Amino acid sequence: PARKLLVLPGDGIGPEVMREVGRVITWLEKNRGLTFEVTEDLVGGASLAEYGVPIRNEVIEKAREADAVLFGSVGDPRWSHVGFDKRPEVAILKLRQELELFANLRPAKVFDALVDASTLKPDVVRGLDIMIVRETVGGIYFGNPRGIETLADGSRRGVNTEVYTTSEIERVARVAFEMARKRSNHVCSVEKCNVMESGLLWKEVVTDLHAREFSDVTLSHMLADNCAMQLVRNPRQFDVIVTGNLFGDILSDLASMLTGSLGMLPSATLGAVQANGKSPALYEPIHGSAPDIAGQGIANPIAQILSFAMLLRYSFDLQEDAQMVEEAVSRVLESGLRTADIMSEGMARVGTSVMGEAIVRE
Amino acid sequence: PARKLLVLPGDGIGPEVMREVGRVITWLEKNRGLTFEVTEDLVGGASLAEYGVPIRNEVIEKAREADAVLFGSVGDPRWSHVGFDKRPEVAILKLRQELELFANLRPAKVFDALVDASTLKPDVVRGLDIMIVRETVGGIYFGNPRGIETLADGSRRGVNTEVYTTSEIERVARVAFEMARKRSNHVCSVEKCNVMESGLLWKEVVTDLHAREFSDVTLSHMLADNCAMQLVRNPRQFDVIVTGNLFGDILSDLASMLTGSLGMLPSATLGAVQANGKSPALYEPIHGSAPDIAGQGIANPIAQILSFAMLLRYSFDLQEDAQMVEEAVSRVLESGLRTADIMSEGMARVGTSVMGEAIVRE
Ligand SMILES: CC(C)[C@H](C(=O)O)[C@@H](O)C(=O)O
Ligand SMILES: CC(C)[C@H](C(=O)O)[C@@H](O)C(=O)O
Repeated sequence: PARKLLVLPGDGIGPEVMREVGRVITWLEKNRGLTFEVTEDLVGGASLAEYGVPIRNEVIEKAREADAVLFGSVGDPRWSHVGFDKRPEVAILKLRQELELFANLRPAKVFDALVDASTLKPDVVRGLDIMIVRETVGGIYFGNPRGIETLADGSRRGVNTEVYTTSEIERVARVAFEMARKRSNHVCSVEKCNVMESGLLWKEVVTDLHAREFSDVTLSHMLADNCAMQLVRNPRQFDVIVTGNLFGDILSDLASMLTGSLGMLPSATLGAVQANGKSPALYEPIHGSAPDIAGQGIANPIAQILSFAMLLRYSFDLQEDAQMVEEAVSRVLESGLRTADIMSEGMARVGTSVMGEAIVRE
Repeated sequence: PARKLLVLPGDGIGPEVMREVGRVITWLEKNRGLTFEVTEDLVGGASLAEYGVPIRNEVIEKAREADAVLFGSVGDPRWSHVGFDKRPEVAILKLRQELELFANLRPAKVFDALVDASTLKPDVVRGLDIMIVRETVGGIYFGNPRGIETLADGSRRGVNTEVYTTSEIERVARVAFEMARKRSNHVCSVEKCNVMESGLLWKEVVTDLHAREFSDVTLSHMLADNCAMQLVRNPRQFDVIVTGNLFGDILSDLASMLTGSLGMLPSATLGAVQANGKSPALYEPIHGSAPDIAGQGIANPIAQILSFAMLLRYSFDLQEDAQMVEEAVSRVLESGLRTADIMSEGMARVGTSVMGEAIVRE
């Protein structure tokens, strides 16, 4: 049976990097006998322009019925004044919440060929390979009460609530421990338990789960402020980091920037089994919509292509095909092709589609 | 009249680095005709050991009556199991809240002599000079409701609340704008307004205040995740950063680690005018209590000494004396003396007290 993919390119450079994934899909269908049933739709600013909402319920239902969702990126300065409930970002937040996509896996990996792209010294980041497991349907992103109220004296008060329950913490920690078993067997759990009770509960639940089910994995705990420092001081001390929604947002972006090549990094968000029996999953590059370079044909399509490789691996267990795509990327880099964001002396600078074609050729 | 100082060395390396400030005070009294009335007391684990609480009310009252508080650091793994309300950290949190110490000024500055101490490439951090203004009595650190509750099914739920009001945001933003006027005239305000209403209010209030009173200063806005990335990618784009309590905690630690020499960085926390007419202020190094090296005589006393220089400058307007201390530190570094944390090839490695003595001699 055909594998059902929902493709949501989104805003900015989303559509142009997604086009290059299209070439990879066509190649796999022709040469590897795979069949995909691809549906495409609008999200973010693109959907606001057409339908007046950042994502239609219809699109959420399509996502629910799909085997996997390939997401581009959302965010567009032209839509920054539409009001809190209509901003482009609502598209990804709603998808996460409605499909219960709770475990966002964000690798920060330094490619040998690109070790000089980092602002950190090569000795500090060579071989870096961290996996951040970020909780994505709880915490302060979704807790109630929330909102802005006007007080009697005319001044205002903004409120958000951080909430975590035992089961929310357990399920994401479980993903992290299982991930660690396939990697270097170490998990570092990050919170602010010295200031926040929700962090204290986080720490206790992770500690209990570890003792009960994962005592073969080593576990450490770190405060979020210290973790930010340690990522700069000595990032290679980490294997898997597990943390909440807000800390994960900041720390995973920090970690990915250590590599100096954001345009290379994919991510996957895994969900709970749904009523229809499907385990939804969403794949997207770590980089954003980059409106400043959109439409110029210079964006790096590799993160989007590697997100598709993650999709092959995690959603369809197509290990061999995923590896083919990943190796093609490595070989193209070794051959010296570079998009502008990862350009360095002596390399050949190319645009989005030449990079995409070269990967397909390999 | 004598200037009233309350000295709170705290835990770990706190007492040993504070001892070196004592030498500086003695020197200033002898050679510069200044008189200080110094009272010392216990906080953190040291206070827990003696009195069973992280800080006594009596100490808070002494702080209220002092002209300035010089703080060491708190935190001790031996007291990590005493329960949430008794942990050593409560000492600094209570001082901030009771004295309304709302604006924490945290410089991240790269000393020319130490540019190689950073894990970042010298070209990226040379000349770096950022001032982070962090709000310290509001936000998720102090908001209610908070706590951990047990649900009917035996599972648990941890809650914390982020709250910011117009006036809380305005007063800290005002400090940031005034600071920028004395520096490079740029403020970057950081929040997560795409996800949190409290961040949206933050952005609006800062924008309004800027339009009303500080339109001569340039203002930009940045999301917290992007700020973490930009601090790694190109930290010199920043002058003054203003942000809330939690983001400030993480981003200021990140920024200070960019310098590679945490043992060098002081901070000041300025408070609102109190009922007794005093404007309290607290000065402390950015580094923590470093229990792993405590008692060995190898800690770097410079951050504590420079915190005292900030105290001379901000609380007593003793510009000349502050500068004397700061210049003595620079000259000692130029002469090649280094504590272990900032040691590099060809330099002379010294302990805490030799470093302290050398600074006094200069
Ligand atoms: C677009 C935005 C809502 C989102 C987030 O904050 O989670 C993004 O920054 C991310 O990390 O995926
Ligand atoms: C000790 C702790 C409560 C404190 C904080 O989180 O504010 C510390 O990390 C700081 O930054 O001063």
